[in-house]
Amino acid sequence: MFALDEKINFPTKKNDLLTVGELLIDMISSDYDVNFESSTYQKFFGGSPSNIAMNTKKLGIRSLVASAVGKDGFGTFLTNHLKNAGMDTSCVQQAEASTSMVVVTKSRSTPIPIFYRGADYHLDYTPKLEEALLNSKIVHFSCWPISMQPVRQTIERVMAEAEKNGIFIAFDPNYHPMIWQKGEDGVEYVKSIVRKVDIVKPSEDDAERLFGKDTPENQVEKFLKLGAKLVIMTLGKDGAIVSNGKETASFETLATEVVDTTGAGDAFWSGFYAAIVKGHTIRHALKLGFAVSAYKLKYTGAVVELPTLEEIKQQYELQEV
Amino acid sequence: MFALDEKINFPTKKNDLLTVGELLIDMISSDYDVNFESSTYQKFFGGSPSNIAMNTKKLGIRSLVASAVGKDGFGTFLTNHLKNAGMDTSCVQQAEASTSMVVVTKSRSTPIPIFYRGADYHLDYTPKLEEALLNSKIVHFSCWPISMQPVRQTIERVMAEAEKNGIFIAFDPNYHPMIWQKGEDGVEYVKSIVRKVDIVKPSEDDAERLFGKDTPENQVEKFLKLGAKLVIMTLGKDGAIVSNGKETASFETLATEVVDTTGAGDAFWSGFYAAIVKGHTIRHALKLGFAVSAYKLKYTGAVVELPTLEEIKQQYELQEV
Repeated sequence: MFALDEKINFPTKKNDLLTVGELLIDMISSDYDVNFESSTYQKFFGGSPSNIAMNTKKLGIRSLVASAVGKDGFGTFLTNHLKNAGMDTSCVQQAEASTSMVVVTKSRSTPIPIFYRGADYHLDYTPKLEEALLNSKIVHFSCWPISMQPVRQTIERVMAEAEKNGIFIAFDPNYHPMIWQKGEDGVEYVKSIVRKVDIVKPSEDDAERLFGKDTPENQVEKFLKLGAKLVIMTLGKDGAIVSNGKETASFETLATEVVDTTGAGDAFWSGFYAAIVKGHTIRHALKLGFAVSAYKLKYTGAVVELPTLEEIKQQYELQEV
Repeated sequence: MFALDEKINFPTKKNDLLTVGELLIDMISSDYDVNFESSTYQKFFGGSPSNIAMNTKKLGIRSLVASAVGKDGFGTFLTNHLKNAGMDTSCVQQAEASTSMVVVTKSRSTPIPIFYRGADYHLDYTPKLEEALLNSKIVHFSCWPISMQPVRQTIERVMAEAEKNGIFIAFDPNYHPMIWQKGEDGVEYVKSIVRKVDIVKPSEDDAERLFGKDTPENQVEKFLKLGAKLVIMTLGKDGAIVSNGKETASFETLATEVVDTTGAGDAFWSGFYAAIVKGHTIRHALKLGFAVSAYKLKYTGAVVELPTLEEIKQQYELQEV
């Protein structure tokens, strides 16, 4: 049970945040397009867990990425990108499969991506990964690594070890049927994960894909019924509803200028993690998450040059109450 | 046994050539690059069987493509490209997987591709495919569809039906370990196919990957020992050695101007098929194959605007002897 006005007491660890999961190439059409008629595409570094890890490092906490890439040019590109951002890549594994890629058209509506999954779902539970996990305060993953075998086994071991060792588990329930392995009801599996983690941060779209259309309040209720301990339901420009089952609170976004929404959710996670690690209450950490997200929204790109959390706090005049 | 100075007597059929296999996106870096550092890539229509089918149609015979694409924008793009080339796409299946793609850097040396295989290896043996096969004189495939399950089963049924019904089988032994399913010795499987087909057209690289380095004459011998009926071993600028085990002949290329080698091998197959269907002897068909290849080499792109076979024959002053 996480009271909103309490701090989370983390034990002393070598590392703060470990993100586990997809590291991939985003191949995005240069022109606006919906039908993949574009002939020119631009390659970008991609994968939400890595974006969060890089962001949180900039905000001033220690973070580590565990992912698998292929033994190919794209894998080298991704690994070098992390290194250039000053990240430790000792938990980036090389799998016997092509580096995963998502092709998507630049679009003003919601684009339909084409998924090319390869190395990402071959992430193994190695002694190195276990060491990184046991040395961390928080472990984060999304639906990608639970959507396919064999990486799902890795996540199941990560969850079991994290629970046994009192490591805070955060889960992004960004369920999408297109990434799921064929012949399985991903919805049921995702629901079964919710009670095993400490925090879930669904968007309205995520909730709708899992439960069907409903009001945000009802969707939060459904996550709680599944056994969620803390639900942060983000509502885009309408902020968020947060509930631990006893207390429910609404939060407003702090966004003033929206240039590019790419990575805004990752920026929120990043600000929230940095804040709880730095000893802020959950309520204040949520506000700081919105502040980091608002900062990111002013710039183009999934990962932008973030200042430290302290600077963000000053800039957005956020006082701990 | 195919004597070089004899014609192949094909029965009357609705269709001449059926090509079965990979239909895919070639994603090629815009800049010269070896390490996938390029950020810009261009999308192209790809897949040798389709290129051969489109070429042969231009040369004046009837041809059909059997392939599988995904239910996605790339699948639509590939199917529309075939339609725009006037091809019948009734044997293009839609599989529950992303349209296959090969990413490669534009390179002056031999580039190392990254393979993203999806829909292509889900081609089913359907009643429609069987009908197309039984209505054809020649069936052609490469190593792609024998390299993975379940499409390998489709090819095995295609070969069995073709043999039962006297359909001429041509096989491109373009073996490459990178396309092969993990944990299997592709070399042994490819070798086991050679005796089941009527014709194989290895390049020197193909032969080296299957047998190790050796002289072209010895490589031809090895294919014959495996039970090949007719071996056309292409030697790039040095032409080809052709043998049926009793007769061996050398052929020179007819290339005068080399602008782009992409698709030169497919152009050779195309000229050869068009010529044997039109009643030329094998020896003359080989020359016509080289003439079509020489014509293609003067232009950029895998599939260029070919004239009819008759025009090519005139242009290259090829007389049946």
